[in-house]
Amino acid sequence: MDNSLAGKLTARSSGISLYGLAPPKRATPPEELKSIVAQQVARLQSMRIDGLVVYDIQDEAARISEPRPFPFMPTLDPATYAHEHLERLAAPKIVYRCVNRDTPETFVQWLKDQDARESPLAVLVGAPSQRAEASISLADAYALARQHAPRLLLGGISIAERHGKSGDEHERILAKTERGCRFFITQAVYDVTSTKSMLSDYALAVREKGGAAMPIILTFSPCGSAKTLSFMKWLGIAFPRWLENELRFAENPLAVSLDLCERIFVEIWDYAHERGIPVGVNVESVSIRKSEIEASVELFKRLRRRMGASADET
Amino acid sequence: MDNSLAGKLTARSSGISLYGLAPPKRATPPEELKSIVAQQVARLQSMRIDGLVVYDIQDEAARISEPRPFPFMPTLDPATYAHEHLERLAAPKIVYRCVNRDTPETFVQWLKDQDARESPLAVLVGAPSQRAEASISLADAYALARQHAPRLLLGGISIAERHGKSGDEHERILAKTERGCRFFITQAVYDVTSTKSMLSDYALAVREKGGAAMPIILTFSPCGSAKTLSFMKWLGIAFPRWLENELRFAENPLAVSLDLCERIFVEIWDYAHERGIPVGVNVESVSIRKSEIEASVELFKRLRRRMGASADET
Repeated sequence: MDNSLAGKLTARSSGISLYGLAPPKRATPPEELKSIVAQQVARLQSMRIDGLVVYDIQDEAARISEPRPFPFMPTLDPATYAHEHLERLAAPKIVYRCVNRDTPETFVQWLKDQDARESPLAVLVGAPSQRAEASISLADAYALARQHAPRLLLGGISIAERHGKSGDEHERILAKTERGCRFFITQAVYDVTSTKSMLSDYALAVREKGGAAMPIILTFSPCGSAKTLSFMKWLGIAFPRWLENELRFAENPLAVSLDLCERIFVEIWDYAHERGIPVGVNVESVSIRKSEIEASVELFKRLRRRMGASADET
Repeated sequence: MDNSLAGKLTARSSGISLYGLAPPKRATPPEELKSIVAQQVARLQSMRIDGLVVYDIQDEAARISEPRPFPFMPTLDPATYAHEHLERLAAPKIVYRCVNRDTPETFVQWLKDQDARESPLAVLVGAPSQRAEASISLADAYALARQHAPRLLLGGISIAERHGKSGDEHERILAKTERGCRFFITQAVYDVTSTKSMLSDYALAVREKGGAAMPIILTFSPCGSAKTLSFMKWLGIAFPRWLENELRFAENPLAVSLDLCERIFVEIWDYAHERGIPVGVNVESVSIRKSEIEASVELFKRLRRRMGASADET
């Protein structure tokens, strides 16, 4: 068996554990950047991750009218950061690409660059809202990828919150699979119900079509303060009211959020397992506070242990 | 300690177990009515209930534009059915009263009738929607009850689904408590999230006011068929999509619904317990199919066992 990340993903394995981060700001002074890279490499090397996810951060001002709780600052290019700055980190990298800033020419060049890498992995992301003007659409991007980067293993994003509203996120997963996606990464999960509902509809649709479910990588992100909470809500992450109360009124919200994430994970893991959907995790910290980053490392370990324990049992 | 139902309610005890039913249709022939009464008395006597809830069924055509899945048929008066037809059943009776069909005169007469009973218990219900024309409001009814039926122990209804939308159901509970309600009965719970959210906001509000939480009696109702499911949805009961799928695609939906109800109950029971809210149950069958009624009896036993086991532990 191919034990690489790409091998596990194409074999639709359960239990894949990823860590996600955003590249540093483009304006970071060189010395500071060097120190960030050194810290991240050291931290990630100690974690035994299956792969690193590097996000492509957009302004998203078109998506929501409320002011962004943290100011938007352009970051380094995710592919450059993943493959050049973090070259020393041996783990496979999954690079996000928001295609709405691309022209066909810039995107094809990017695809060719990725296709030349060893075992390239990427997640393409469309416009953050229908109001944003996209120069190429996600559908165009998938078609160009098949043509210009046949070696690139593609993933898509899936947003359970969208399923809670329109009930068709499983159809988007199926459509993206048709277009070449072989795995899906969710946004941070705090809403068990919409996530289970998305997986339930997905499992039923897969059964009806007679195909196989692709791995769904669930993102988990600690929430240690009211500011982080409001930022996560701004990003579109849904918090059930009771859970938001737990975080708001906790003496130690960070510890509470870790326990909640772990319980949410176990509930969804068990649920997906019974329905034949391979599930993995992607742990991140949306905050750059040291305590929240350390909590994300702790959460990663806890969730990997949970997946390991369950895999041993079966 | 006063071990009667009224005593347990006013002491704000956890673990109260009720069974709920609607009176038979007014058009039931006398012989058939006699047989229904005999069956119900026999069934209920074997169940060791703390009390029987007798609903007041309204047409509710003003609440929703969709056609009612089962036709509406006027039923016997709940108080008459509870206290006269079911006189042989020794259990205390909680009688529902929809006050929107009352004039002040008819309601005061009803109050005086109840006040003359031994240990009277009632739940007053307002208009099913704001569009229905109420001849007396719920606020009027509470005021009249204080004046004309001081012995009547009053409860209110609480609807978690409303909390999911407007987030103020805990304030309605507090306002109804001010007006004299000493316990609350929910509608059938299939949506854990909105129920936990309502209890969470209620617990926080009670803590802030420095008062004590009133007992919340959670209603559970088996769902054994697509027709029952659509009727429950018509009644305003929310089913998360994944849970609806479980019921729709189950080989034995009735057994699945019992397991789901038990799991939902345990989750809410633990949650409420940690937050100092006394919780009880009210089990009903919205269907008159024999299998669903028998399943409700089985569910009642399971939930009482769950509450008994937990009470022994503390």
